[in-house]
Amino acid sequence: MSKTKIIMHGCNGAMGQVISRLAAQSDSVEIVAGLDIADKGLYEYPVFVNPVDCQVEADVIVDFSVAKAVDGLLTFALERKLPLVLCTTGLSEAQLKRVGEVSETIPVLKSANMSLGVNTVFKLVAAAAKILAHSGYDIEIVEKHHNQKLDAPSGTALAIADAMNEVLNHEYTYKLDRSSTREKRDPKEIGIQSVRGGNIVGEHEVLFCGTDEVVEIRHTAYSKAIFAKGAMEAAVFLKDKKPGLYTMADVIG
Amino acid sequence: MSKTKIIMHGCNGAMGQVISRLAAQSDSVEIVAGLDIADKGLYEYPVFVNPVDCQVEADVIVDFSVAKAVDGLLTFALERKLPLVLCTTGLSEAQLKRVGEVSETIPVLKSANMSLGVNTVFKLVAAAAKILAHSGYDIEIVEKHHNQKLDAPSGTALAIADAMNEVLNHEYTYKLDRSSTREKRDPKEIGIQSVRGGNIVGEHEVLFCGTDEVVEIRHTAYSKAIFAKGAMEAAVFLKDKKPGLYTMADVIG
Amino acid sequence: MSKTKIIMHGCNGAMGQVISRLAAQSDSVEIVAGLDIADKGLYEYPVFVNPVDCQVEADVIVDFSVAKAVDGLLTFALERKLPLVLCTTGLSEAQLKRVGEVSETIPVLKSANMSLGVNTVFKLVAAAAKILAHSGYDIEIVEKHHNQKLDAPSGTALAIADAMNEVLNHEYTYKLDRSSTREKRDPKEIGIQSVRGGNIVGEHEVLFCGTDEVVEIRHTAYSKAIFAKGAMEAAVFLKDKKPGLYTMADVIG
Amino acid sequence: MSKTKIIMHGCNGAMGQVISRLAAQSDSVEIVAGLDIADKGLYEYPVFVNPVDCQVEADVIVDFSVAKAVDGLLTFALERKLPLVLCTTGLSEAQLKRVGEVSETIPVLKSANMSLGVNTVFKLVAAAAKILAHSGYDIEIVEKHHNQKLDAPSGTALAIADAMNEVLNHEYTYKLDRSSTREKRDPKEIGIQSVRGGNIVGEHEVLFCGTDEVVEIRHTAYSKAIFAKGAMEAAVFLKDKKPGLYTMADVIG
Repeated sequence: MSKTKIIMHGCNGAMGQVISRLAAQSDSVEIVAGLDIADKGLYEYPVFVNPVDCQVEADVIVDFSVAKAVDGLLTFALERKLPLVLCTTGLSEAQLKRVGEVSETIPVLKSANMSLGVNTVFKLVAAAAKILAHSGYDIEIVEKHHNQKLDAPSGTALAIADAMNEVLNHEYTYKLDRSSTREKRDPKEIGIQSVRGGNIVGEHEVLFCGTDEVVEIRHTAYSKAIFAKGAMEAAVFLKDKKPGLYTMADVIG
Repeated sequence: MSKTKIIMHGCNGAMGQVISRLAAQSDSVEIVAGLDIADKGLYEYPVFVNPVDCQVEADVIVDFSVAKAVDGLLTFALERKLPLVLCTTGLSEAQLKRVGEVSETIPVLKSANMSLGVNTVFKLVAAAAKILAHSGYDIEIVEKHHNQKLDAPSGTALAIADAMNEVLNHEYTYKLDRSSTREKRDPKEIGIQSVRGGNIVGEHEVLFCGTDEVVEIRHTAYSKAIFAKGAMEAAVFLKDKKPGLYTMADVIG
Repeated sequence: MSKTKIIMHGCNGAMGQVISRLAAQSDSVEIVAGLDIADKGLYEYPVFVNPVDCQVEADVIVDFSVAKAVDGLLTFALERKLPLVLCTTGLSEAQLKRVGEVSETIPVLKSANMSLGVNTVFKLVAAAAKILAHSGYDIEIVEKHHNQKLDAPSGTALAIADAMNEVLNHEYTYKLDRSSTREKRDPKEIGIQSVRGGNIVGEHEVLFCGTDEVVEIRHTAYSKAIFAKGAMEAAVFLKDKKPGLYTMADVIG
Repeated sequence: MSKTKIIMHGCNGAMGQVISRLAAQSDSVEIVAGLDIADKGLYEYPVFVNPVDCQVEADVIVDFSVAKAVDGLLTFALERKLPLVLCTTGLSEAQLKRVGEVSETIPVLKSANMSLGVNTVFKLVAAAAKILAHSGYDIEIVEKHHNQKLDAPSGTALAIADAMNEVLNHEYTYKLDRSSTREKRDPKEIGIQSVRGGNIVGEHEVLFCGTDEVVEIRHTAYSKAIFAKGAMEAAVFLKDKKPGLYTMADVIG
C-alpha cells in the first residue's frame, strides 16, 4: 500500500515538528511539502511560504497552526480540492461557519481532541454510562495535569462528561467542588475533580461506582505526540472520503 | 411497578443468604419462597424441601446451588413454566444439553459471571480491542485475588481475554509468564499476570498500551454481593421474556 | 505464647460485634468478657451491664462505645488497673483531660484512626514529603468514599495532610477546590480532592509529582474490620506497657 | 548560592545530551566542560577529547558513558581531585575494586538507579515492609515497561524486592510466575509480575495486601530525564563531601 502524501500546514510549530519527526519513521504516511510563514530549513521536504507556490502532488492537508492562518488554509484546500485534517482550535464563529461550507466540497475532519486513545475513551464512557448509570452507579471523573495549567477542570474532562451526559438525556449536572457544602451526593451529578502537579501531560479517570463494585476507565498521556499520531491516522482515513464534516469518532469507527 | 416474585433455589447456601438479605431491602424483587435440602428457619419466607410442595405464585426462579441439584431444578422450572436464572457452575455436558432443551420451552439465563460490572467490562474491552488493537496497541491484563486462590490466572481474566480475542479473529495467544524467556513482546499476544495477596475479592485491569498513551479498563469487586445483585437484575429482566437461552450480556443491553 | 485477654467495652455495637467475630478466630487475642448497657445474648463470653460485676481476669480493655460511656469506662479501667485501648471519638475537652490524667497511672492508647494500614501511610507520607517536597515535588491527595458521606474532605485525608505538613514546618496550605479560580498551582499547597460514589469504604491516594516522575502512596479499605484488627493489635501491644499515653504510631514502631 | 560547576563525561551520549539540556535551564548546576571521544559541536561549553587538555575549573564530574571509558575517567578524577558521580553501569569486578580504592581519596557516588523518585521508593518500601510484613501482609510487585524490553522482571523491580528483603532478614523468595503451578501463595514470597506494552518508560507498583486493606507504593517515570535530574542532584550533594563511597540513598538523606 502506498503512503498517504501529506502537506503539513504549520510545519514549523511544535506539533508540526512532532508530526514531521513521526512521519519520517512512518510506513503509512509521508510529508511531501510544508507550509508556514518561513522556511527555517528544518526539513528534507520543501517548505512554502506562499501556498500558491506549493504545486506538490498530495493526498491530504494536515493543519496544526493558529486561528488567523485558517482562512488562507481553507482557500488553499478548496482550490487544490484536498481533504483537510483541521487541528487548530479557537476558531471564530465565522471561521466555523466557513468550515461547514467548505466541507460541502471537500472532506474536512475537525475534533476536540486528536488522540486516538482519548477518542476511544469518549466512546467507552458513553457505552458504560448507558449501562451502569441506569443501574444506579455513580459517575465521577478525576483529571490530573501539570502545575502550570490555569484552568480546572480540563477541557477533555468536560468533553468526557459531555459524552456521557449525551447518552443520559442531559439529566446530569457537574459537581466541581465537594468541600464547600455538607450534603449527600446527588445521584444525578457527575463529580469532576482536578489534580495539579509536576509536569503531568494529562490523565483522565472515570469511575462508575456501584454497590460493592467499581468500573474504571482511564487514559494516560505520556507526551503530546499522541495528538500528532491521531492526526496522521486521520489523514489516512480522510484521503478517499466524500465531502463532508468528519470527527475522530469516524476514524475509530 | 410491582416487585418481581422470586423462588430462591439453594436458599441456605452462601449466595442464597446474600440474595435473601439484599432482596429484603429491594424495591424491585422479593423472595416468595425458598427451596433447599432443609428448612433451617433462616427466613421469613417459606422454605420447601420438596419442590412438589412449593405451590407459591412466582415470576421467576433464581438458582445458586450445586450441580447435582440442577436436574431436579430443571424439571421443577419446566413443570411450573417459570423463567430460570441459573447461576450454578460446573454443569456436566449432559446437563448443559438439557439446559438447551429446556430453554426451548422457558426462558433460561446462564452466564460465566453474574456481576453487572464484570459483564459491562466484557463489553467495554471488546469495543476497545476492536479499535485499539488494530492501531497497534498492546493488550495486557493484570488480575488480583486473595492468597487462598489456587488457580492463576482467574477464570474471569481468561473470560476477559476471550471477549477481546473473539473480536480479534482469535489471532491472539495468551502469555502467562514473561520471566522464563528473554525476548521481545509478540504484538499478537495478550499478557495475563496474576497477583495474590490478603483477602482481595477480585480486581481485573486491562491495559491497551500505545505510543505515548495507555487506555485502561478496570473492575474492582468489594464483595461477593455483586453476584447476588446481578442475579436479581437478571430475574427482573427474565420474567416476561420469551423462551430461549439468555446471558448477562442481554441484561446489560 | 498465651492469648491477650480482652474485656470488650461496647460489645453490642457495630465495631464490638466485628471485634468479637474476629477475636473468636484469633491466635493472639480472646475476649473474656463484655461490657454494655444490656446483655443481648450475642456472645459466648459473659456480658456485664454493671462494671462492678465484671471480676473476670483480663490483660487489657478495648473500647468502641460512645462519648457519654467513657467517664464510667475510665473509672473502671483505673480501679482494675487495666491498660485501655480507647477507640471512641468525639470526646469532650474535659474527657480528654481526664484521659491524660488516667494515663499517668495506666497505659492508654488513643488514635485518630485504628487501622494499621492507615497509620503506616501516615508514616510513609511523612517520610516521602520530607525527601520529595524539598526537591520541588508537588503534593496532592485524592480520597474516595461512599455516596452517603456528608463531609469532604475526609478526616483521614486531613490527618494525612497534617502528617506531612508537620515535617514541612506547617508551611503548606490545603487547596480543596481548583475549579473556582483560574491560576497556577502554588508550590506550597497540598491539593485535596474528594470523590463520592457507591458504597466505597475508603480510599486515600497521595501523589508526589515531580518532573517526569510521580511517586504515589495509596491506601484502600475493603471493610471496617481493619479498625477492629488495629484495635486487637493495639491490645497485644499495650498489655505489658508502662503507664502513659500511646498512639497507633507506637504500635507500628 | 553559586551554581555547582560540572564536567560532563560522556557529553555526546543520550544521557549526556539530556543533562546538558536540563543544566542549561538549571539554577543549581552548570556544565563548564565536556569530555567525549569527539567534539561534535553540540554545546556552548568546550568539549575535550583528551582529558589532559581539560584544565577548566570545576566542582564535580558527572559520568554517563561506557564501561571501557571508566578507567581513564577514574585516573582523570584522581589527578584533578574532583568528586565523581559515576552513573555508568556494567563495570567489571576489577573496575569496581578500583572505584573503591579511588573513593579513599575522592568522594565517589554510585547507584543502581539515579532517579530521586525510585530511590525514595526504595526507602519507603523498606519502611513499609518492616511494619506490614511482620503483621502478615503479603507483598507483591507489578512492573510495566515498553514492548522492546528483553528481560523480565526489570532490574529496578528486583532492586525494590531486595530493598525489602534486606529488612526482612532475607527470608523471602521471589515468585515470578503463578500460572504454572496450582497452589496457595507462600506467605514468605514476594510476587513480581511483568507487563510489557507500548513505549511505557517504567512503572513500579508495590502492594502490601492485608485483611480488608491494601497499601500501595507506586513510581511512574514519564521520561529518562529523571536519571539526569538525579545525577544533577547528586553532583550538588557531592561537591563538598569528604572522600568515600556514596549512593543516592545518601542524597535523599
